[in-house]
Amino acid sequence: MHNLPIRFVLVDTSHPGNIGAVARAMKNMALSDLVLVNPKEYPSAEATARASGADDVLAAARVVATLEEALADCRFVVATTARERDQNFRVIDARSAALQLVDEARGVDADAAVAVVFGTERFGLTNQQLSQANALLCIPANRDYASLNIAMAAQLIGYEIYMARQAVEGVPPARPREVPLASSADLERFYTHLQQVMDEVGFRDRTQSGLHLMNRIRRLFGRAEPDINEVNILRGLLTAVQKRRRRAGQHNA
Amino acid sequence: MHNLPIRFVLVDTSHPGNIGAVARAMKNMALSDLVLVNPKEYPSAEATARASGADDVLAAARVVATLEEALADCRFVVATTARERDQNFRVIDARSAALQLVDEARGVDADAAVAVVFGTERFGLTNQQLSQANALLCIPANRDYASLNIAMAAQLIGYEIYMARQAVEGVPPARPREVPLASSADLERFYTHLQQVMDEVGFRDRTQSGLHLMNRIRRLFGRAEPDINEVNILRGLLTAVQKRRRRAGQHNA
Repeated sequence: MHNLPIRFVLVDTSHPGNIGAVARAMKNMALSDLVLVNPKEYPSAEATARASGADDVLAAARVVATLEEALADCRFVVATTARERDQNFRVIDARSAALQLVDEARGVDADAAVAVVFGTERFGLTNQQLSQANALLCIPANRDYASLNIAMAAQLIGYEIYMARQAVEGVPPARPREVPLASSADLERFYTHLQQVMDEVGFRDRTQSGLHLMNRIRRLFGRAEPDINEVNILRGLLTAVQKRRRRAGQHNA
Repeated sequence: MHNLPIRFVLVDTSHPGNIGAVARAMKNMALSDLVLVNPKEYPSAEATARASGADDVLAAARVVATLEEALADCRFVVATTARERDQNFRVIDARSAALQLVDEARGVDADAAVAVVFGTERFGLTNQQLSQANALLCIPANRDYASLNIAMAAQLIGYEIYMARQAVEGVPPARPREVPLASSADLERFYTHLQQVMDEVGFRDRTQSGLHLMNRIRRLFGRAEPDINEVNILRGLLTAVQKRRRRAGQHNA
């Protein structure tokens, strides 16, 4: 995924571990533009530890003194909140917000960014800070316990942004299968083989389901979508059953 | 939101802080059934601290010794993985998995659960553990840095489950299955029975795939998501094979 100018802004963050965890969450979701407004304790060994392999995002983070500074070049800003409704604000859920952020970020010129703003762990954002946003972003959650950890919120919003990008940019193709699926002809030969063994051991369905036994078995294996190797294993097992029966039968004769 | 039987299972978790963070993430998303398989350090003050206001979820968590025990009463199991493709598995993304989990959870009787399994922080789940799942769940993420913290993964999946529930609540549940899916315990009994028959007929895998034969067979049947009747048919067939062999053996003696 190429770079999109989507910025995460953390305001007055108290715990450096959370800053590291946000950096990791951002990199997991292919984001890299992190701005820290007046962090309480930074740089910090704890931030670096929690960032894990995202130390590059952390190292590139800008530290500024005010939210105004962090947002100066931004054209569309959403602020996170746990409130589902807020007087005079448009409140959108994370999924809709992500779609709009991606849409705006694709439209803007290279020097402008869109931003998501996260408040302090305990009190969120002040009214004055909220007023710098175009909309509030609310993460749908348990109404009795709606307060998410800040890094969790960043992870969720980053994920929705990633999903929104996939929706508009297209999903890169999956790696092809190493082993092809069995063909219908392969499966037919397996079912014929299985029917032979069922006849040889005198197996009858006693569940009285009304559906022909072999049709039920076909549906079961059809759902599993077996590959060529798997059909070979199953047929090998059927052959082993037959061989043992025949050998026993010969001795018997 | 009323209770749905959706279980999160954490296997061999190393850091107690992660257990607490998962408890909080679950409560944020209105989930409460947490099972810990062989946690390295638990109970723990760090777990309690990270759980924050979700200490009730943590207090109600069950600790068990094995994954089999954690899943015995589960009818649909997905295992988390960072791999987007895994030979012999159905791999679904978090959003689709959440829809299916909610769908199955609404359909099952009250005593059965569906489950999401999370592996260790460093190594994820072993091949043998993965083989107890019906499908693998993959969180879409940056291909160059796809490894999410375990609590972050739990938060994302919990969120998708919450979103899926919002989408279907109010919508009457899909017609429940006429025949419930086989539980993990039912499937374990089937695999044990199948292994007996394979030993009796002297069947060995000759495909040299590197993956233990029984793990391949587990994945094949896991993908099919067999119901109780289907498992009974398969076991009936195994019993018929055994009876014929024994009868032949007796004549032979």
